[in-house]
Amino acid sequence: MAHITLPLDLPGIRGPLAFRPETARPLNELVDVLLRGPHSLTRGERELIAAFVSAQNDCYYCETIHGAIAAHHLGDEAVVVSVKSDFQHASISDKMKALLVIADKTARGGKHVTNDDVKRARELGASDLEIHDTVLIAAVFCLCNRYVDGLATWAPKDPEFYRERAAHVAAVGYSSAVAEDAHKAGPASKA
Amino acid sequence: MAHITLPLDLPGIRGPLAFRPETARPLNELVDVLLRGPHSLTRGERELIAAFVSAQNDCYYCETIHGAIAAHHLGDEAVVVSVKSDFQHASISDKMKALLVIADKTARGGKHVTNDDVKRARELGASDLEIHDTVLIAAVFCLCNRYVDGLATWAPKDPEFYRERAAHVAAVGYSSAVAEDAHKAGPASKA
Repeated sequence: MAHITLPLDLPGIRGPLAFRPETARPLNELVDVLLRGPHSLTRGERELIAAFVSAQNDCYYCETIHGAIAAHHLGDEAVVVSVKSDFQHASISDKMKALLVIADKTARGGKHVTNDDVKRARELGASDLEIHDTVLIAAVFCLCNRYVDGLATWAPKDPEFYRERAAHVAAVGYSSAVAEDAHKAGPASKA
Repeated sequence: MAHITLPLDLPGIRGPLAFRPETARPLNELVDVLLRGPHSLTRGERELIAAFVSAQNDCYYCETIHGAIAAHHLGDEAVVVSVKSDFQHASISDKMKALLVIADKTARGGKHVTNDDVKRARELGASDLEIHDTVLIAAVFCLCNRYVDGLATWAPKDPEFYRERAAHVAAVGYSSAVAEDAHKAGPASKA
């Protein structure tokens, strides 16, 4: 059971987001810009970073839903599994591997990221914007993972739930998908 | 030197925020709602949580600027120092101490927060909204700390710099203060 009374029976981050729409709105806008806005990294690649960091942080809901959204965009569930378990041997570009090194170290603590990590990513073609956004995506999912688990939210175990939700979020985006929950939930109790 | 080329010579998070205004806008809105919006916790108390978590995460820029903003609101620099070094013996309410336990555990990883931690906060008068916002403030500063240190930004050492900036941010808020930087910086290079 969650640590606070959350509206409806929404899983993962969706419960806290419906509880506090004032903070949900800018948080979803941030995630929409980072994961779905115009970019030199594909939506699938950016979702892979989110799923990977969430797996490193052992957040079941986040790693599963963002893994499913990455798989939806990439048309490939196997690559998501291999990135989470051993990204250095996954079927992704060398540039993505270098960015995942930076994401992994950011998640452990920003000071772990070295000049050499960044130099390596740049040599493999990463731009300043890609390096910046990799650090920020990793940092944002350190937020989301702690938000989800710090309030002890629940998560479905059925992979099909995540596939269906992934297709919906991929189609409409985070802000719109979460606004639908808020509409269902009505004004949240703040007692 | 920062890992990427940041506009102007802005310290801490202000460099990356000016580099990427599309993500800065929702992030600052989130922080404004959490730390400055209408609330049963004072602005000083919420800034104390931000400063405390940033100190736990060893992020010099964030712990110093949010410590200075907390001190500005509370009219007390000593209490900020004592919260960072040993909050259980600081001159703050028992409810705040219980909330800082939750913030500390959230920062280490959401699963560390126990039912007993939450029960204790509730017995001392914390509402669901206060517990929710404590978890979210802690999570947001896990983001900010990683963003600041993951890009290797620089930070001034002069305490007077932070006192002056704190008075300004306390007066105008995060979104407005950062918008001034963006105006100075002009369009950021994304090469």
